[in-house]
Amino acid sequence: MTNSIRAEVITIGDEILFGQITDTNTAWIGTELTNIGIRVVRKTSVGDQADAILESLHEAHQRADVIIITGGLGPTKDDITKKTLCTYFGVGMVRNESALALVTGFFEKRGREMTDLNRAQADLPANAVYIQNDWGTAPGMWFEHDQRVYVSLPGVPFEMKHLMTNRILPKLTAHFKTPIIKHKMIRTVGIGESFLAERIEAWEDALPDHIKLAYLPSFGGVKLRLTATGDDNARLDQELAEQVDRVMPLIQKNVYGFDNDELETVVGTLLTEKKQTLAAAESCTGGYLSAQITKVPGSSVYFWGSVISYNNSVKVAQLGVQPDTLEQYGAVSEETIRQMAEGVRKALGTNIGIATSGIAGPGGGTPDKPVGTVWIACATDQRTVTRLLKLGQYRDQNIQLTTTYLLNMLREEILNQ
Amino acid sequence: MTNSIRAEVITIGDEILFGQITDTNTAWIGTELTNIGIRVVRKTSVGDQADAILESLHEAHQRADVIIITGGLGPTKDDITKKTLCTYFGVGMVRNESALALVTGFFEKRGREMTDLNRAQADLPANAVYIQNDWGTAPGMWFEHDQRVYVSLPGVPFEMKHLMTNRILPKLTAHFKTPIIKHKMIRTVGIGESFLAERIEAWEDALPDHIKLAYLPSFGGVKLRLTATGDDNARLDQELAEQVDRVMPLIQKNVYGFDNDELETVVGTLLTEKKQTLAAAESCTGGYLSAQITKVPGSSVYFWGSVISYNNSVKVAQLGVQPDTLEQYGAVSEETIRQMAEGVRKALGTNIGIATSGIAGPGGGTPDKPVGTVWIACATDQRTVTRLLKLGQYRDQNIQLTTTYLLNMLREEILNQ
Repeated sequence: MTNSIRAEVITIGDEILFGQITDTNTAWIGTELTNIGIRVVRKTSVGDQADAILESLHEAHQRADVIIITGGLGPTKDDITKKTLCTYFGVGMVRNESALALVTGFFEKRGREMTDLNRAQADLPANAVYIQNDWGTAPGMWFEHDQRVYVSLPGVPFEMKHLMTNRILPKLTAHFKTPIIKHKMIRTVGIGESFLAERIEAWEDALPDHIKLAYLPSFGGVKLRLTATGDDNARLDQELAEQVDRVMPLIQKNVYGFDNDELETVVGTLLTEKKQTLAAAESCTGGYLSAQITKVPGSSVYFWGSVISYNNSVKVAQLGVQPDTLEQYGAVSEETIRQMAEGVRKALGTNIGIATSGIAGPGGGTPDKPVGTVWIACATDQRTVTRLLKLGQYRDQNIQLTTTYLLNMLREEILNQ
Repeated sequence: MTNSIRAEVITIGDEILFGQITDTNTAWIGTELTNIGIRVVRKTSVGDQADAILESLHEAHQRADVIIITGGLGPTKDDITKKTLCTYFGVGMVRNESALALVTGFFEKRGREMTDLNRAQADLPANAVYIQNDWGTAPGMWFEHDQRVYVSLPGVPFEMKHLMTNRILPKLTAHFKTPIIKHKMIRTVGIGESFLAERIEAWEDALPDHIKLAYLPSFGGVKLRLTATGDDNARLDQELAEQVDRVMPLIQKNVYGFDNDELETVVGTLLTEKKQTLAAAESCTGGYLSAQITKVPGSSVYFWGSVISYNNSVKVAQLGVQPDTLEQYGAVSEETIRQMAEGVRKALGTNIGIATSGIAGPGGGTPDKPVGTVWIACATDQRTVTRLLKLGQYRDQNIQLTTTYLLNMLREEILNQ
């Protein structure tokens, strides 16, 4: 890739150098630039000092075709990126009317007073192309200077990602002659990375050189990302489709979706298609399960609600779990999880009820029910299925894994109907 | 801080540039170095290419007293840090007997065959001081060259942390006469960065040169970080305490904690101290509020559960909201939120009930109730307080902000009791 477009990423902020925050932006930017065929050759983090920022810009100019700068665009005194870019480019600061309109609207909408510090966010270096930030008051900026492209973005991750995805990456692809790179993502759940790798080994080894495979593991699932590089768009799409057709028979049962499909979105689509309504009874997941389900816009069509029964009295009063069942088997048992799933289905009057009850940790473990012991259940008008999960020691992971496994159980139950 | 010890951190590895892994090492190193009074002035990531590594070393030499290098010490061909350090220092490679003994023992202990690649891990640049790695086969190395200290460490986080904590940090403290650096974090909620900045401007401008202020914003909250540098530990603590005393009267009502306090943890501690129990009725937050509350280990002591009433039928059946209230005022209204908070308190039998109901978006907005219109409430045995929030267009943000504002309302109500 010696003659490919070279990029450097500069992050600005003392809090990064002092370790007050972990920089996740540049890993994301690295992936995105790599995906459009731009090679990141260096990442630099400097503090909120003009001389350090200027030095890093001059160095990057020697090596890179694209320089992406994040951070230091806030309204406060310690944010000096714009002033420093004026010095670097040898230009003055100009108030940008579009930027000002955006900031003004942002405050009017919230019925809040605007300060001069806020208005100053609309001041840009004179040579900046203004890139609208829909998610905040800090502007994105694009500069072309001495055959290089400079991009300045806010450091707030969701604002930066929005600007990169919707504004900057398309502009970079258009500005530079980059090879065509196509992706196809196959999303699996309920199978570990190494088992998946063994099952598709022969297929993976037979992939042509211009199609690469990456395993992207996450909680309870592994994403397979195919990346094809070439110069014929249609041909690449066809080749990727052929590879998917070849591998699917090997992993069908574990595949819940493709590309940007999320498990909760796939489940929501199935529920909508089958005109089924859903209710949840959560114990160890403490609301995380419902939060995942309701992350999906429009989920109110099929999701009626849930009862989070952290205290056993709630399991009895709201879900109709029998006190002697809790007495005899405990809250973390197949008998209780069954009554929770069936109880919430009945109480909320939905077609399907799902439930979680377990020991998320770090406390609450016993010799026979150690931390990580979790029961999940799914009740329909036809049957109630239950499953025992033996998870690890870490509270957050146990909550996330339980949610993923239960959503997949729900997906399978809907498909089985 | 011009006369403080200056450090640069260089991380080596293509996988960091391409975003295949997120670099968490340098944030940790930044914190540790800051805590022993060494100022990190730059972080650089370069790929596995000798020329790039050499260039970064030469640049760092111009600016820093200490250069910490991580990565590129594995047994495989693409790990070239040691060879490159030989070039940089102008020395040859020498097999280190202590290092060889460690590697040999490492393999004997696991009953595994040793290859020449493994043996080569015991080869060090001739000017290296060998720093024993108890947790892996990649050695740590300490170099003194041209009045600078160079440290080379493996990139595997737990090996790097072990070497830094037990071997390198003590050596650095002994080698340099380092100033003491102390931090104090003030955590605020419910006030924007620019408003906060205006309110404390006079105080900020009056800070002495050796005490710096940084604004660290996040959803619904801004952290104020004070950093004091000097040589008298007790004196710095006292000066920081004095500055906190000075600024607190200006921001008291927005401060929920200090240093590592999280809002949900602070609320949990207050509930435990006051022996109060809590229940939640969630609509627009869809479980996210409960998930935040139950993120805290041991929250089951004070949190009994919640009812997520996405469907109005659940508001009526489970929370006792009056059908004609929903009819007349709608689900997103002060009348409904009041009945939700009081209803869940009654239904679950807790001391306190909190509730959310709003239009998270993207759909569901109307001219008089646009997306971002959210009601929150907190009901105790003494009174029920309600508040209307006018948030933005983005579902995730609206859910997170609603949760933060309601947890803060709960905090204030507990304190007012």
